[in-house]
Amino acid sequence: MKPLSQKTTILGAGLLGGSLGMALRQRGLAKEVHAWSPSERTRKICEKSDWCSAVYRDAAVACEGADLVFLCGPVDTIPPLLEEIAPSCGEGCLLTDVGSTKARISETGSRVFPSSHAATFIGSHPMAGSEKSGLQYADPHLFLGKTCIITPTNQSSGPLQRLLQIWKELGMETFECSPAEHDRIVAHMSHLPHGLAAILCAVLADLPDDWAACAGNGLRDTTRVAAGDPKLWTAIFRDNETAFRESLKRIQVGLDEMHAALDSPDNLLLDELLGKAREYRVGLEEKDLQNE
Amino acid sequence: MKPLSQKTTILGAGLLGGSLGMALRQRGLAKEVHAWSPSERTRKICEKSDWCSAVYRDAAVACEGADLVFLCGPVDTIPPLLEEIAPSCGEGCLLTDVGSTKARISETGSRVFPSSHAATFIGSHPMAGSEKSGLQYADPHLFLGKTCIITPTNQSSGPLQRLLQIWKELGMETFECSPAEHDRIVAHMSHLPHGLAAILCAVLADLPDDWAACAGNGLRDTTRVAAGDPKLWTAIFRDNETAFRESLKRIQVGLDEMHAALDSPDNLLLDELLGKAREYRVGLEEKDLQNE
Repeated sequence: MKPLSQKTTILGAGLLGGSLGMALRQRGLAKEVHAWSPSERTRKICEKSDWCSAVYRDAAVACEGADLVFLCGPVDTIPPLLEEIAPSCGEGCLLTDVGSTKARISETGSRVFPSSHAATFIGSHPMAGSEKSGLQYADPHLFLGKTCIITPTNQSSGPLQRLLQIWKELGMETFECSPAEHDRIVAHMSHLPHGLAAILCAVLADLPDDWAACAGNGLRDTTRVAAGDPKLWTAIFRDNETAFRESLKRIQVGLDEMHAALDSPDNLLLDELLGKAREYRVGLEEKDLQNE
Repeated sequence: MKPLSQKTTILGAGLLGGSLGMALRQRGLAKEVHAWSPSERTRKICEKSDWCSAVYRDAAVACEGADLVFLCGPVDTIPPLLEEIAPSCGEGCLLTDVGSTKARISETGSRVFPSSHAATFIGSHPMAGSEKSGLQYADPHLFLGKTCIITPTNQSSGPLQRLLQIWKELGMETFECSPAEHDRIVAHMSHLPHGLAAILCAVLADLPDDWAACAGNGLRDTTRVAAGDPKLWTAIFRDNETAFRESLKRIQVGLDEMHAALDSPDNLLLDELLGKAREYRVGLEEKDLQNE
């Protein structure tokens, strides 16, 4: 197929950035992939990687002449980076990011790339992360069958259609909503599960050490995400603090319901709560089967 | 190897009972495996299964002449079943169960099988369950590398050593503690993760349906156990209610700490909470590697 991009620039070559670079090249979607990283170690790995045509120490220079730019660093680094690279992004350049929050990033994107700018920014959030981070875990198949949330604001149709096509060609389902709606959705569907897993692990860490010998598959699955990088997640919780607090309040209500069910003399409320939970979880599994 | 049992009886041939029957036969640990199930459908499947020499409609009859008995039904069915089969269990018969709670089961076991009884009951809890239940998911490899908690009270050393050997021959690590200590441990390490996953799913079930399209791997892992059978888990929460409530209170404290961390003007508390959680979770992973 004809490449969708002559020169793609990836800013931040970690798990997602590296996986993107590999996938874009493997699928022939980008003719050249250029990369920037603030880490000398990462730049050295990129230099030796097949998918990467050139490596830069300066993000703005890396974006010169690019027709597609992905911002793949931690969420708190994306707004200042957008400001830094804006002067280098020219006609026909489409910029997006892979951050886990969207309101603040999209706000900066709209301000730095107004309709008068030659380039366009539209936020993306490919839901393909992992508790692992770093280029060493990059995998070109990371995106297959996963959902990518795209948060257009008032950009024109051309760049939006192009962005949708790019994520679809990478094997993703796409889901469009506003940046604010995105942040409420992921607060509940992603940040809350992470927060609960972290709370659970922090609680268990204070219990006797030898209890860990009794950790089964249930605990392992339930807490896997808590192994994620604390700095990345602190930045996400801060950036999405309002919606994250809203989601924690719902858990408080759920916890109170569990207590009420236990207080109840019969098992009806307990069966009902667990049955409702089971129905929801089995529903997610059925969605997976439909998408296979 | 010489079989550890001439006739093993499995009472309740679901996921765990069926897996046990298969594993005992595959490893040559039992010469014959007999099974009882209250379900006609399950009995019919057992009749056609290689691992099963005979199938019974009456649990007491199934135990006649057995030298090893596993009670594998839901936790609330185990105490009455112990009462029912006690008269059929003779000299040298070792009984155990696979229930997720131990205090009430062990109490009944000690009462129904006092030291004057020819047979001996010692509680077990192989931490090898799954969100799936039923004989169709049975797997002889289910126990490999997992932990089995054994809760002796004042039984003599012979039967205890025999029980430890059986679980070890099935590929399990063993961990001994009192029934009460078991219930506190699993309340935190197993019942609490299940309860939290259920609360999270019940909360998400009330949110807009299309948000489910944004469920990523993190949510799926975190909530996998919530697909478990509500009736089984209602029985477990009820049977271990005191310790389960204690574990929920610790989560309340953890939730309050998360709010306090968010209230704090800087990120120190948030980093600290997430860092403590990460350290605990990575520690579980390292234990896995040591056991491989």
